[in-house]
Amino acid sequence: MIIILKPGADDSVVDLVVNRIEELGFTPHISRGEYRTIIGAIGEEKPQLNQLVEEITGVERVVSVMKPYKLASREFHPDPSIYNIGKVSIGQGFITIIAGPCVIESKELLHEVAKSVKAAGAGILRGGAFKPRTSPYSFQGLGVEGLKMLREVGDETQIPVVTEVMDPRDVEVVQRYSDIIQVGARNMQNYNLLSEVGKTNKPVFLKRGLAAPIKEWLMSAEYILAGGNHRVILCERGIRTFASETRFTLDISAVPVVKGNSHLPVFIDPSHSSGRRDLIEPLSLAGIAAGADGLMIEVHSCPDKALCDGPQAFPPEAFTKLMQTIGQFAEVMGKVVSSA
Amino acid sequence: MIIILKPGADDSVVDLVVNRIEELGFTPHISRGEYRTIIGAIGEEKPQLNQLVEEITGVERVVSVMKPYKLASREFHPDPSIYNIGKVSIGQGFITIIAGPCVIESKELLHEVAKSVKAAGAGILRGGAFKPRTSPYSFQGLGVEGLKMLREVGDETQIPVVTEVMDPRDVEVVQRYSDIIQVGARNMQNYNLLSEVGKTNKPVFLKRGLAAPIKEWLMSAEYILAGGNHRVILCERGIRTFASETRFTLDISAVPVVKGNSHLPVFIDPSHSSGRRDLIEPLSLAGIAAGADGLMIEVHSCPDKALCDGPQAFPPEAFTKLMQTIGQFAEVMGKVVSSA
Amino acid sequence: MIIILKPGADDSVVDLVVNRIEELGFTPHISRGEYRTIIGAIGEEKPQLNQLVEEITGVERVVSVMKPYKLASREFHPDPSIYNIGKVSIGQGFITIIAGPCVIESKELLHEVAKSVKAAGAGILRGGAFKPRTSPYSFQGLGVEGLKMLREVGDETQIPVVTEVMDPRDVEVVQRYSDIIQVGARNMQNYNLLSEVGKTNKPVFLKRGLAAPIKEWLMSAEYILAGGNHRVILCERGIRTFASETRFTLDISAVPVVKGNSHLPVFIDPSHSSGRRDLIEPLSLAGIAAGADGLMIEVHSCPDKALCDGPQAFPPEAFTKLMQTIGQFAEVMGKVVSSA
Amino acid sequence: MIIILKPGADDSVVDLVVNRIEELGFTPHISRGEYRTIIGAIGEEKPQLNQLVEEITGVERVVSVMKPYKLASREFHPDPSIYNIGKVSIGQGFITIIAGPCVIESKELLHEVAKSVKAAGAGILRGGAFKPRTSPYSFQGLGVEGLKMLREVGDETQIPVVTEVMDPRDVEVVQRYSDIIQVGARNMQNYNLLSEVGKTNKPVFLKRGLAAPIKEWLMSAEYILAGGNHRVILCERGIRTFASETRFTLDISAVPVVKGNSHLPVFIDPSHSSGRRDLIEPLSLAGIAAGADGLMIEVHSCPDKALCDGPQAFPPEAFTKLMQTIGQFAEVMGKVVSSA
Repeated sequence: MIIILKPGADDSVVDLVVNRIEELGFTPHISRGEYRTIIGAIGEEKPQLNQLVEEITGVERVVSVMKPYKLASREFHPDPSIYNIGKVSIGQGFITIIAGPCVIESKELLHEVAKSVKAAGAGILRGGAFKPRTSPYSFQGLGVEGLKMLREVGDETQIPVVTEVMDPRDVEVVQRYSDIIQVGARNMQNYNLLSEVGKTNKPVFLKRGLAAPIKEWLMSAEYILAGGNHRVILCERGIRTFASETRFTLDISAVPVVKGNSHLPVFIDPSHSSGRRDLIEPLSLAGIAAGADGLMIEVHSCPDKALCDGPQAFPPEAFTKLMQTIGQFAEVMGKVVSSA
Repeated sequence: MIIILKPGADDSVVDLVVNRIEELGFTPHISRGEYRTIIGAIGEEKPQLNQLVEEITGVERVVSVMKPYKLASREFHPDPSIYNIGKVSIGQGFITIIAGPCVIESKELLHEVAKSVKAAGAGILRGGAFKPRTSPYSFQGLGVEGLKMLREVGDETQIPVVTEVMDPRDVEVVQRYSDIIQVGARNMQNYNLLSEVGKTNKPVFLKRGLAAPIKEWLMSAEYILAGGNHRVILCERGIRTFASETRFTLDISAVPVVKGNSHLPVFIDPSHSSGRRDLIEPLSLAGIAAGADGLMIEVHSCPDKALCDGPQAFPPEAFTKLMQTIGQFAEVMGKVVSSA
Repeated sequence: MIIILKPGADDSVVDLVVNRIEELGFTPHISRGEYRTIIGAIGEEKPQLNQLVEEITGVERVVSVMKPYKLASREFHPDPSIYNIGKVSIGQGFITIIAGPCVIESKELLHEVAKSVKAAGAGILRGGAFKPRTSPYSFQGLGVEGLKMLREVGDETQIPVVTEVMDPRDVEVVQRYSDIIQVGARNMQNYNLLSEVGKTNKPVFLKRGLAAPIKEWLMSAEYILAGGNHRVILCERGIRTFASETRFTLDISAVPVVKGNSHLPVFIDPSHSSGRRDLIEPLSLAGIAAGADGLMIEVHSCPDKALCDGPQAFPPEAFTKLMQTIGQFAEVMGKVVSSA
Repeated sequence: MIIILKPGADDSVVDLVVNRIEELGFTPHISRGEYRTIIGAIGEEKPQLNQLVEEITGVERVVSVMKPYKLASREFHPDPSIYNIGKVSIGQGFITIIAGPCVIESKELLHEVAKSVKAAGAGILRGGAFKPRTSPYSFQGLGVEGLKMLREVGDETQIPVVTEVMDPRDVEVVQRYSDIIQVGARNMQNYNLLSEVGKTNKPVFLKRGLAAPIKEWLMSAEYILAGGNHRVILCERGIRTFASETRFTLDISAVPVVKGNSHLPVFIDPSHSSGRRDLIEPLSLAGIAAGADGLMIEVHSCPDKALCDGPQAFPPEAFTKLMQTIGQFAEVMGKVVSSA
């Protein structure tokens, strides 16, 4: 259930409500807005319990949430969320572009790409240190060595960084080096990993699973939020369908559907969804037009030699040109491109 | 095989080539461009035959086409096609909006919608007279009576009209009353219907089947083109996937994929793909941003009383507002909205 | 609504009910069983109308049917249907195998296959005269010439025959030459075609569309039944999914799901669903084990030279061996293989 | 590359080959058959390297494997694998049934089910201690307490046990208590988990991911095999498609397709694929008929009170009856039901 306090209700009201819902066996989550405070109560709802909370002075209204996710819902958090990572903003009113190589190969190459994408207007640098690879015989990433390179390049070029974690045992080290923690599509329902990243204080970039209905995706976000980490960014990266001209099918409708149900920011990944360099520009613009809060784009300074996922990487020159068009779209949509 | 003539090759060369390829058992299709003429030869290709054509004076080059579709391909017709229907243009450089009710209920209602969408900038009026209905017990449309209303309203309000045909026996009457003939998703592989509309001289608006790979969709266009009708407009209207928050999944990538392979204009239908009024605006803008040449949108003056498909219809006021935003997008993209 | 008469209710009761429901705006469909008569009333149901029928003496019970299909439902026809075509039975208690070439190439070849499959125990001969082909440049079948060959071979070898119709204009000629009329997957929602075959008195073999939910498939059967043709046979032939090792994905669960909701017999087509000769045996046996009433299998005497769909055709020797295993399965399941 | 030794080649030949391929940078995997030894060399293949191995006396032939999986392939291990777990056999010639509750609720309930399914002929007992739950607010299983109960019940009733592991950190404790380790569908591409179970010496029961092509499923098996664990059992449990009458779509064709490409045993799970109790029997029999080596079935002694996944659980009496029919099918197919 979600408890909406009256405007101006002070901490003594919050304490009363928290005590009461804890007595009733719920776990409280407090969200203080500019005008009023909202308290989420996590647990099994029963009509008679709502009354016991509603009667507290200072409580305006108690809303039953039948949706299986609560903390991720618009009912709990009516306004779209905005997060600040350094001087970069993510969420309502902003367009934020994450760019960089699929996998970190060397500090030099990463540095070169970082400078280039920052100059073009990107807000965040991506780079893979731990890579999920279909084959046990493929290159699996540089691991902690890669994390360190990413941190150094981020600091040197003054751009926040994001990288993927695949193993609950690596969460500690990844959150130490990275500004944002990515959970990949194949781990969207790796619940123990979700619980671990939910315990950190770094924003989590959660990709949609290849076969995940939107409800299950939001439930995975709920795992992270329920752990106490209030900052989740969702990323649509294509679903598995019969259509084989692209690697996956970008479900562009997911952007407005999620935004109608949740306050969390939504990105799209045109690179992995299509697997085709020639589709990065049209899909990026489609994502922005559909209302996405940002894009994650693979940019590689010499795409043809990339150790991983080459065919979908985008050269820096094309990225610079794309950023200019994105700027024009942002203007029409009344949004600001948030650069690093 | 596709025969590209030298610039300036005159009709005598065309005649020579046509005679030769007919002798070899192929059917010729001639496409005269501004600078040069291209001749498509339909039939089973064999390497030695190409030589017999290549040696004709005036022939620059013979291209073997391994793609199963030829007339729909970029190889046959390198420049994107543009069609003129009255004063409305469809194709490269234009954005053309088709709007109107799902089904024609009365002349008065249709007239009201027609005036309203034309005033807002629509290029073409839609309205269903023959309706494909899942249930034999649902309203099946007004039939020929509806066709006549559509024609009259189109003439009175000066806007070209499009309507669906479902039965080869109705092609004659539909092409008599309508400016564009629509073939619906469920008939995309109704080959006899495709052959019949291929014999008319009205442009055909061909929706993608719910389970059709892009290659099969282009093969269906090829049926129409091979019948001698050179004007086909493709429309992506959502494919069937596991994602159930929307009625179908709009495959936005289909727009750039088709444009890379074919010269035919591509539209999207945000109404039928989503089945949700609240998604019409974001999906429309996403389609335009991805490069679509136009949109087909259901507009109904009193959506809540619609006889058919009500939940996805859009009220005229919302349509007018959407057309303004589309105008801004068109400007950024260097395109012109082609109004009636 | 469905009206169940008391056991022993005579024709005067039937007349009373029919008059009453016609007055109320419904269309009656009468089904006389061994013990009692059931009357389906097609039209928009309202609770108060049920009462007006329930009060008639001789009426036991009135059942409201909220399912969108009525005549195809178990509520209307509680016992599984059985049809007799010559001496061959289709339905409850029987396993009936349809076999033959994809497309009729010559009378000699067809005759050879017919003798062979009949000797092996097949109940019905298939052969295509009108072929739905993805490409306008592929062989489209022998047409009426092929129909005549099929009829002659059926008569000479004493086996009932089935062939596909694709065009409402061909229904008359197909029903003249064929014992069963097939409607293919791509025409499952070609509603005018369904209406035409619904007016004939030949059983209709209705394949499931590639993207059809089971409910829509049963609605298509309802179109045929509502036309007055009481004999529809359903055939699961694979749905379109991401799985690409087979041409389509055989939805084996569809067999028990349909049998739970409908009285109509259900077949599976292991040839077209897989597109692979090596999967015909395991999928055939899986279909029988799941409860299918029969199979449609492509058998071709020289598969490697077939004009169409060669890779999935099965040689007569393999078919004969498969029929022996099917016989053993039938015994375990307490069913009888119904041969011609 | 795969090196096939001549019949009778002794250990000195094996040593020579192993040394040579290690020098060339490959990792050797030795498989000793009854008649001959086969050595898999894992690494990047180059034509000239094959020659350097082929010239060794005692080597009959070197086969290049272009499939991305090697150890899971039929080329590496031509005969279907058979594993023995206690007195229960899994693989070629056997049908092995795994049965038990979705989640372990109490030792008493588990004991009751164990006795019942063993008496009916089951070979292995299942029970969940760590449960992957879509919602963070659902019961997550008894954890290590549940593992201990499972071990005790397995020992007391003399039946091998299987349970799921979800976290690399739990592999050690799960392999201590369980005879077989299960990796669930949502973790099929949790590569670090696959690597960890690949280091144990317990057979791994690997479910197919909801969106996994068969090739990727075999690649996940390859991760385990490459870790040195030679015993993997595959389980098809339904893929995500548009068909919504069942929870997932059982891809029955996967059984023969996998058996054609791999030596690993293949099971099907009729409970989770359908989510419907009424489909367990037809899908179980279809699986056996398609050639599956076994089934995993949820059996619960009081299904209506189950803490988890109730609607798909099967009561013990129905299971006993099903086992009798499975026995008859096994006989027809020349297989033996391997009971505990």
